[in-house]
Amino acid sequence: MVAKLYCFGESGNAYKAALTMTLAGYAWEPVFVDFFRGEARSPEFLALNEMGEAPVLVDGDRTITQSGVIQLMVAEKTGKFMGAPEDRDEVLRWLFWDNHKGSSQFGTLRFLMNFLPEDKRPQETIQWLSGRVRAALKTLEAHLAGRDWMVGDGPTLADFACCAYLYYPEPFGFAREDYPNIGQWLDRIAALPGWQHPYDMMPGNPSDRA
Amino acid sequence: MVAKLYCFGESGNAYKAALTMTLAGYAWEPVFVDFFRGEARSPEFLALNEMGEAPVLVDGDRTITQSGVIQLMVAEKTGKFMGAPEDRDEVLRWLFWDNHKGSSQFGTLRFLMNFLPEDKRPQETIQWLSGRVRAALKTLEAHLAGRDWMVGDGPTLADFACCAYLYYPEPFGFAREDYPNIGQWLDRIAALPGWQHPYDMMPGNPSDRA
Repeated sequence: MVAKLYCFGESGNAYKAALTMTLAGYAWEPVFVDFFRGEARSPEFLALNEMGEAPVLVDGDRTITQSGVIQLMVAEKTGKFMGAPEDRDEVLRWLFWDNHKGSSQFGTLRFLMNFLPEDKRPQETIQWLSGRVRAALKTLEAHLAGRDWMVGDGPTLADFACCAYLYYPEPFGFAREDYPNIGQWLDRIAALPGWQHPYDMMPGNPSDRA
Repeated sequence: MVAKLYCFGESGNAYKAALTMTLAGYAWEPVFVDFFRGEARSPEFLALNEMGEAPVLVDGDRTITQSGVIQLMVAEKTGKFMGAPEDRDEVLRWLFWDNHKGSSQFGTLRFLMNFLPEDKRPQETIQWLSGRVRAALKTLEAHLAGRDWMVGDGPTLADFACCAYLYYPEPFGFAREDYPNIGQWLDRIAALPGWQHPYDMMPGNPSDRA
């Protein structure tokens, strides 16, 4: 039975898992989670993942949540995208950084600025979070100076984590022209065989709700 | 040469590393980072950790950043606190959850509510983040119902990550009486041989700046 990824197109966290599996050639199929109608907080979904979050991967008798854990499982099973043995700490630390300072803030700011009704958007919070997002993008831009990939000489899980929210069209303060190293790196990832945009890789996108 | 942990008492993230090493019997000594005077953003510190964050562990010729990576290294080297082999995914997913939804938000809210000057505290943001912190605490409280430890039958890295900000006295919306499962679990961790409060384990605390 092919692995099932509970996901939705707007979720960069789900995209990290979907992109890693796709590029590693790990067979999977999507199961749509209707996040915007509250499905991730439903009793049925909480029985699958008490954290109330996508993605969830159901793979044989193994149920895995948290994109980082799914990414690590795929790397372990396929032998791909973990980098050289001496780079393991470095790959792991960017996965943690992404979860802590990168995607977590990019995704939240994008949600507040685009997916809340206009009259419900908390303006002070958006300003505050924008500052934190700029600081994270600055760290990423500086790290990518003179590098093709986040770690070592080729793509790793660190690239597929840190890039995830940066392909979305909805504005949250990231523009490629302001961060040229990031922009070129996103093009490099998008040129990998099998790459697809999150809205093409997973079901569900804002136009469904328009 | 004993491993050096760049840290400061107020940092729950540094505490995760310090607590894990201490309880695992991994020799370390602290190097104080004067975070509140901007040391973590100084050129010297950025040369050590481009992310501009504590903790950093310098251990022989290995420099490790991100508390989760330090925790995993200690578990690997000492054979302690990783849980049973079949629980590895579960330990990892709580480490990622903690970095994404737990400590990241607990620590940030505590900072805004206590360590910013009173007239600079962003009230709308504090309200917004308080709601997210409550949701995270609810997930933790529910997970700990009927359990002594986050994963399996004994303490693991998952406990030492998720607990880190919950021992601090500065208010950020967490009170043990509102979360009895969490309260009992914090007592259980604090009863482990060698446990110390973060302000006793690491240099630097708010009274230094009073």
